Amino acid sequence: MEVVKNKQVVLKWFVVGAPTEKDMEVREGTAQLKAPEGSGGLVVKNLYLSCDPYMRGRMREDYSSYIPPFQPGNAIEGFGVAKVLDSDNPNFSVGDYVAGFTGWEEYTLITRTESLRKVKKNDIPLSFHVGLLGMPGFTAYAGFYEVCAPKKGDAVFVSAASGAVGQLVGQLAKLHGCYVVGSAGSKQKVQLLKDKLGFDEAFNYKEETDLTTTLQRYFPDGIDIYFDNVGGAMLDAALLNMKVHGRVAVCGMVSQHSYTDSEGIHNTFALVRKRIRMEGFLQSDYLHLFPKFVETVSNHYREGKIIYLEDIAEGLENAPSAFVGLFSGKNVGKQVVCVSKE
Amino acid sequence: MEVVKNKQVVLKWFVVGAPTEKDMEVREGTAQLKAPEGSGGLVVKNLYLSCDPYMRGRMREDYSSYIPPFQPGNAIEGFGVAKVLDSDNPNFSVGDYVAGFTGWEEYTLITRTESLRKVKKNDIPLSFHVGLLGMPGFTAYAGFYEVCAPKKGDAVFVSAASGAVGQLVGQLAKLHGCYVVGSAGSKQKVQLLKDKLGFDEAFNYKEETDLTTTLQRYFPDGIDIYFDNVGGAMLDAALLNMKVHGRVAVCGMVSQHSYTDSEGIHNTFALVRKRIRMEGFLQSDYLHLFPKFVETVSNHYREGKIIYLEDIAEGLENAPSAFVGLFSGKNVGKQVVCVSKE
Repeated sequence: MEVVKNKQVVLKWFVVGAPTEKDMEVREGTAQLKAPEGSGGLVVKNLYLSCDPYMRGRMREDYSSYIPPFQPGNAIEGFGVAKVLDSDNPNFSVGDYVAGFTGWEEYTLITRTESLRKVKKNDIPLSFHVGLLGMPGFTAYAGFYEVCAPKKGDAVFVSAASGAVGQLVGQLAKLHGCYVVGSAGSKQKVQLLKDKLGFDEAFNYKEETDLTTTLQRYFPDGIDIYFDNVGGAMLDAALLNMKVHGRVAVCGMVSQHSYTDSEGIHNTFALVRKRIRMEGFLQSDYLHLFPKFVETVSNHYREGKIIYLEDIAEGLENAPSAFVGLFSGKNVGKQVVCVSKE
Repeated sequence: MEVVKNKQVVLKWFVVGAPTEKDMEVREGTAQLKAPEGSGGLVVKNLYLSCDPYMRGRMREDYSSYIPPFQPGNAIEGFGVAKVLDSDNPNFSVGDYVAGFTGWEEYTLITRTESLRKVKKNDIPLSFHVGLLGMPGFTAYAGFYEVCAPKKGDAVFVSAASGAVGQLVGQLAKLHGCYVVGSAGSKQKVQLLKDKLGFDEAFNYKEETDLTTTLQRYFPDGIDIYFDNVGGAMLDAALLNMKVHGRVAVCGMVSQHSYTDSEGIHNTFALVRKRIRMEGFLQSDYLHLFPKFVETVSNHYREGKIIYLEDIAEGLENAPSAFVGLFSGKNVGKQVVCVSKE
């Protein structure tokens, strides 16, 4: 049985507060390249790994979440794109490319194969299967169409708009005939939103002193839809700027990083005055729409109607800093780690 | 033209903070008992006036609300039940009883008659037309059936549960086959909830030290529906106790009393985790359902399936203290002012 070296990114302990690189360790382990008989599993070579904000939630010791915590000492688990090296499962063959839950390491034995779907190596970059065509893209799709109830001409605001989810929300909204404004945290991102991603307007929230008046400026008649990726002060400002019967889709990964939002939301009275519907959602509740999503978004991409910005860190050893960077907005576009191109 | 003395309750100035009796004045004015020809108006004798928390919102100088502010120096406007003394309007005759917007005074010339509906003096107390069969009752009805999406067996929590709205929400929920728990602010109210209003459980929130664990105790499997009449710390505690796909109907009059909730809501992350829908509403968006509401709730009342608790202050001179008492929970049941029985 062939045993090889296997570089791994391991969570060292449960994390309190903002995650740092010190909470993770890159270590040299070993891997067997054969799937045990009867296991129904696969041995895969990991190609692309996804850095997602929700993973912060799995770094705390809390069994009440919708997904169990990571186990300190083990390789971190996350979405990835991988190539099958050995298979004990009739649904997968050697040489298949798969996307789904895998480990932050070079080689992974995947025994829980339910999350895996086969993907093709074609004109769509493989890495897109953890971004545009993966969980973040599907979050944008399900959130926008199923939660926001969009209508042509609606005024749409997207926060963290150049991120993995936000950039697709904005582009889908434009294709739907909406007026779309995005917020981001740097001049460069604002330029990308306007020049590359087709947003009608964009602003750098770090340069604004009063978010309520900022939003008034971009939405003099109010906001129909706020796709909330950040919570906190931006959500509070948006509530004051919603139109009557406005909708707020709370994707709000950032709000999940700590247990309580110490700043708090203070404008909930606007919910009544303006009859606002504010709804939290998870893409996993809409998986029946996944095939339609892949088809629709792939077609848009092939027709040049949407683009997708990625920020690719090269090599597993850079995975901890890439992940930590999410929380200070270091990434420009979807943060991916390339473990190996093939 | 007959001119009579007309006792009036006048707002003295725009109010900052919690309203006090000093913000209002009871004065002796005059009234003409004839509706001017061509005015299309009515002169009414006011019988019952409604004290409602939303009126606090009209005591501030703010034109952005869904309803314009009161005019200092004029009689306060509010829902009432009145008898027509003179009519220049073909739709109303002398001797008719009407419910709708009128003045806090003995006699009112009503020229904007759109809000008025004729009511009958029968086995249902006249005062119920500003309570059980008026705006508060309809708020309960529209909020429960249209916003909460109730199902048989749902676990329902109602705050301010013995109040004008809450007491009907709880009873409708029981009739719908739900498990219903209410919170209130005194031992007496808690007893009424359990003994008279048929709630499964009730608690005095003032006796609880940690609302989150209190709600855990009453809802070990979580809350399907929270009908929120108070906002603030109770809403925060409820968010932590909602079930997946729970619904929060924000009626939240109390949240409207000041512009910003200084305490804030800190558990919005639960919206995502539990995919909670939180929706503000106003009964005025559902007026097409009003006839069905009156029929349904009148029938329930006549069949003895629901009751309605009123707290009636006698005389206009007691209206200011009755209104102010709403905000400290002095009232037990729907607060009404009886100006005259006939």
